[in-house]
Amino acid sequence: MKFSQIVAALGDQVTASSLGTDPDIQSLAAIQEADETALSYVEGPKFADYVATTQAGALVLPTDERLQAKATARNLPWVSVKNPRLIFARAIALFYRPFQLPPGIHPTAVIDPSAEIGEDVAIGAHVVVQAGVKVGDRACLHPNVVIYPGVSIGAGTVLHANCVIHERSQIGANCVIHSGAAIGSEGFGFVPTATGWEKMHQSGVTILEDGVEIGCNSAVDRPAVGETRIGRNTKIDNMVHIAHGCKVGEAVAMAAQVGMAGGVTIGNRVILAGQVGIANQAHVGDGAIASAKAGIHHNVAAGTTVSGMPAIPHKLYLRCSALLKRLPDMSKSIKQLQKQIGSDEADSELSNKLSNKP
Amino acid sequence: MKFSQIVAALGDQVTASSLGTDPDIQSLAAIQEADETALSYVEGPKFADYVATTQAGALVLPTDERLQAKATARNLPWVSVKNPRLIFARAIALFYRPFQLPPGIHPTAVIDPSAEIGEDVAIGAHVVVQAGVKVGDRACLHPNVVIYPGVSIGAGTVLHANCVIHERSQIGANCVIHSGAAIGSEGFGFVPTATGWEKMHQSGVTILEDGVEIGCNSAVDRPAVGETRIGRNTKIDNMVHIAHGCKVGEAVAMAAQVGMAGGVTIGNRVILAGQVGIANQAHVGDGAIASAKAGIHHNVAAGTTVSGMPAIPHKLYLRCSALLKRLPDMSKSIKQLQKQIGSDEADSELSNKLSNKP
Amino acid sequence: MKFSQIVAALGDQVTASSLGTDPDIQSLAAIQEADETALSYVEGPKFADYVATTQAGALVLPTDERLQAKATARNLPWVSVKNPRLIFARAIALFYRPFQLPPGIHPTAVIDPSAEIGEDVAIGAHVVVQAGVKVGDRACLHPNVVIYPGVSIGAGTVLHANCVIHERSQIGANCVIHSGAAIGSEGFGFVPTATGWEKMHQSGVTILEDGVEIGCNSAVDRPAVGETRIGRNTKIDNMVHIAHGCKVGEAVAMAAQVGMAGGVTIGNRVILAGQVGIANQAHVGDGAIASAKAGIHHNVAAGTTVSGMPAIPHKLYLRCSALLKRLPDMSKSIKQLQKQIGSDEADSELSNKLSNKP
Repeated sequence: MKFSQIVAALGDQVTASSLGTDPDIQSLAAIQEADETALSYVEGPKFADYVATTQAGALVLPTDERLQAKATARNLPWVSVKNPRLIFARAIALFYRPFQLPPGIHPTAVIDPSAEIGEDVAIGAHVVVQAGVKVGDRACLHPNVVIYPGVSIGAGTVLHANCVIHERSQIGANCVIHSGAAIGSEGFGFVPTATGWEKMHQSGVTILEDGVEIGCNSAVDRPAVGETRIGRNTKIDNMVHIAHGCKVGEAVAMAAQVGMAGGVTIGNRVILAGQVGIANQAHVGDGAIASAKAGIHHNVAAGTTVSGMPAIPHKLYLRCSALLKRLPDMSKSIKQLQKQIGSDEADSELSNKLSNKP
Repeated sequence: MKFSQIVAALGDQVTASSLGTDPDIQSLAAIQEADETALSYVEGPKFADYVATTQAGALVLPTDERLQAKATARNLPWVSVKNPRLIFARAIALFYRPFQLPPGIHPTAVIDPSAEIGEDVAIGAHVVVQAGVKVGDRACLHPNVVIYPGVSIGAGTVLHANCVIHERSQIGANCVIHSGAAIGSEGFGFVPTATGWEKMHQSGVTILEDGVEIGCNSAVDRPAVGETRIGRNTKIDNMVHIAHGCKVGEAVAMAAQVGMAGGVTIGNRVILAGQVGIANQAHVGDGAIASAKAGIHHNVAAGTTVSGMPAIPHKLYLRCSALLKRLPDMSKSIKQLQKQIGSDEADSELSNKLSNKP
Repeated sequence: MKFSQIVAALGDQVTASSLGTDPDIQSLAAIQEADETALSYVEGPKFADYVATTQAGALVLPTDERLQAKATARNLPWVSVKNPRLIFARAIALFYRPFQLPPGIHPTAVIDPSAEIGEDVAIGAHVVVQAGVKVGDRACLHPNVVIYPGVSIGAGTVLHANCVIHERSQIGANCVIHSGAAIGSEGFGFVPTATGWEKMHQSGVTILEDGVEIGCNSAVDRPAVGETRIGRNTKIDNMVHIAHGCKVGEAVAMAAQVGMAGGVTIGNRVILAGQVGIANQAHVGDGAIASAKAGIHHNVAAGTTVSGMPAIPHKLYLRCSALLKRLPDMSKSIKQLQKQIGSDEADSELSNKLSNKP
């Protein structure tokens, strides 16, 4: 595809270089790995220096005249936009879309006669769709997906191979459930008794609103009563555990291996980095951010950033963790001070004198 | 179901209100979400205030006369018991049981002729049962489950969709293995050599005793020699990793994303909260508790609670983690003290004087 | 198998005892659990004492004359080698090999006509192999494996039940992918916009070089552009998350539940213990080691060991974490010092005097 065609397809938010060249772009690449057939982009200041050396055929630049001039000087065609990463994403979509099965039901799929299958649905080999399931138009169920009875799957939703949707789940439109994920699986509900653990059946519902993504081998559990709910456009990475009764807001992003205990509530546009853990019933307010590995035991106020275990405000965490590795020095200083003022000998004359406030 | 019928079904451990009303209960709900058709319960003091405002049709209360009076004053029928959560669990079971496949073998299942299948077993679509497998009476194998050769599955055990039971595994009676879990998978056994890692085959056995539950996408690994064993009635949540040769006692509970390295031994009735990690060969004694994200490197004594990374006694952890965020203050105090007594100038007159103990 | 036959099979690196006895070895066992039909071994000094008490029929010992004499005194046949664990691994392989399907394609497998299947390949029940896939000679695909279009699988590679290999993946020779693992799954690529998260399609490739192992329910994600790559003979345990664009070197070992964010680079022979997390774009140098639960935010130099969260050099971590639990003492000492020199009363005479450096 000619670079000029790509620029045209990206819409009118972009400023393009006015060089005579119009390279034939065949691929997309990171700026340090690109060759002359590739379009690349500058992702933040860390990568700006590559404009001088990249072998890319063309670039997406931020709105930075210095970088534009640098590229022009190298006769390197560019488009310049406020958010190069976004425009690069749209350029990728011109070249590549994930594999979708063609509409149709594979003869080895086992579909209960009571299931309602929409228009242009694709159902792969060995898929199992049980009684009373509803599958919306244009949904795509990759091979070996299993749907328990009574589930509903929204229009345009993609279920990747080997994921499992359990009873009492409602999946919205245009969701993506990745391989091996389990939605609506039984919450971990056991009541301690004198003779051991007694099971609390999980009779509630699990709801994924429209546009939700759930990563590989993640699990969103069904609650005892009420609902577990993931809000619109929330994106969840691999191996994330959402316990029974959690309520997650809209446009939240959770990185891999996050775990949240029962009844956690998460506001809108929250960002949880990798391996964050959130304790039972805790609330994380709108727009809050938790850094990687944060251990959240208490409510987190909207708009704040927390880090560490136990989680504390991020700026305080930075100071504390810098001091943490200075603990040996601090300990030594305290001992020296004690020696200097003789505090170990509480009854020494000097010590007595010192503590004799005037 | 009439409330009086529910009370009758719950047995004679309960005290019931003597109000004239006997509402028709159609569902179960959390106390803050219940409507007049729902039975709810008070789960701990945090929820007691809701007795004054809940819209529930009836309540399970703790044995607390103040709460009973409060409910009676609102003309709200109740039952009162020592453990409301347990009774609520039993009430749920009156309304809902998890979906089970009806007995019978789906025609698409592939069952080796040498497998021994018990009475009233349910085997779903596309299940694979290999040579020499024994499946006990009333077991339920949901669709796409794969059983490797020689495995035994106890009576009444439920295997959810897409879980895999590997060779040399023995699963007891009345176990539940959730979607995507792998039992008896190869332990991570590699020996370092000059040319890289040499595999140690895992020839041992994996044993789940009766009543064990294993969560979605968890793994219980097969050891090189000897056995990996999970004791009776132990309940394990999602994405938990049990390495080769671990021995877990009875009635243990492990929350999601716990990981234990090879050869760990866990006593009876231990509770491990989410994301706990336990190092190679460590032992956790009977009844011990580890808080969320604890990192256990050494043995934990029976009956103790540990927290933090590295794990220390919980009370000490609470004090230390409170002080952790006061490190900047502590550092400042030390500097001020040093300034005051001039410790930075070790040879200063005052400093010398101060360290001149009498 | 006679012990003498085992010794002969282990090659000429071993020194054998010259006792008259040649027991019939039927199994392998840990030294504290062995009976007289079992061969066992001494794994490190911790287990050396068992030589005096073990019921094993024969032992693999380190090259330690004291231990050899001890075994000989008990009339216990032994072989002695530099690395007993390695020799024990080879002895296990004489008794046990993991179950492999016999070559052949199960009639329920769904193989696209365009797929190229090598010689002596085993394809189990309900496997799905899509268009353009290449499967090398002697590969073994266990039941319910799903291969997306265009993937290549090297010779001798084993795919365990229910794992999924996504489009644009290239799996080398002699790899093992364990149950439920997802290779080449979509990277977590979303660009924040005013209206939420916009998806960045993941058009890159995922490459596993020869001899790689990936544990149960782990995921290796496909990048937006370029490649995610796992180097030769790297071994990865269960529930490990490798994000898009990570580049992992050769002969690396990662324990369970490790997570690495996008674009992380890992050198050769690195060891990551359980639950380690590595932030975006960080680099871990050749031969470095990260202890369990380490949180790595910055580059780690080759050959170093880091621990803790945030990760710091291991020796410093040991000192700091020992002091961490002494924070209450340190705090008390500081308060006492302040009291002694009256630092709380900044304007007190003594304080003024003390801070009056000469």
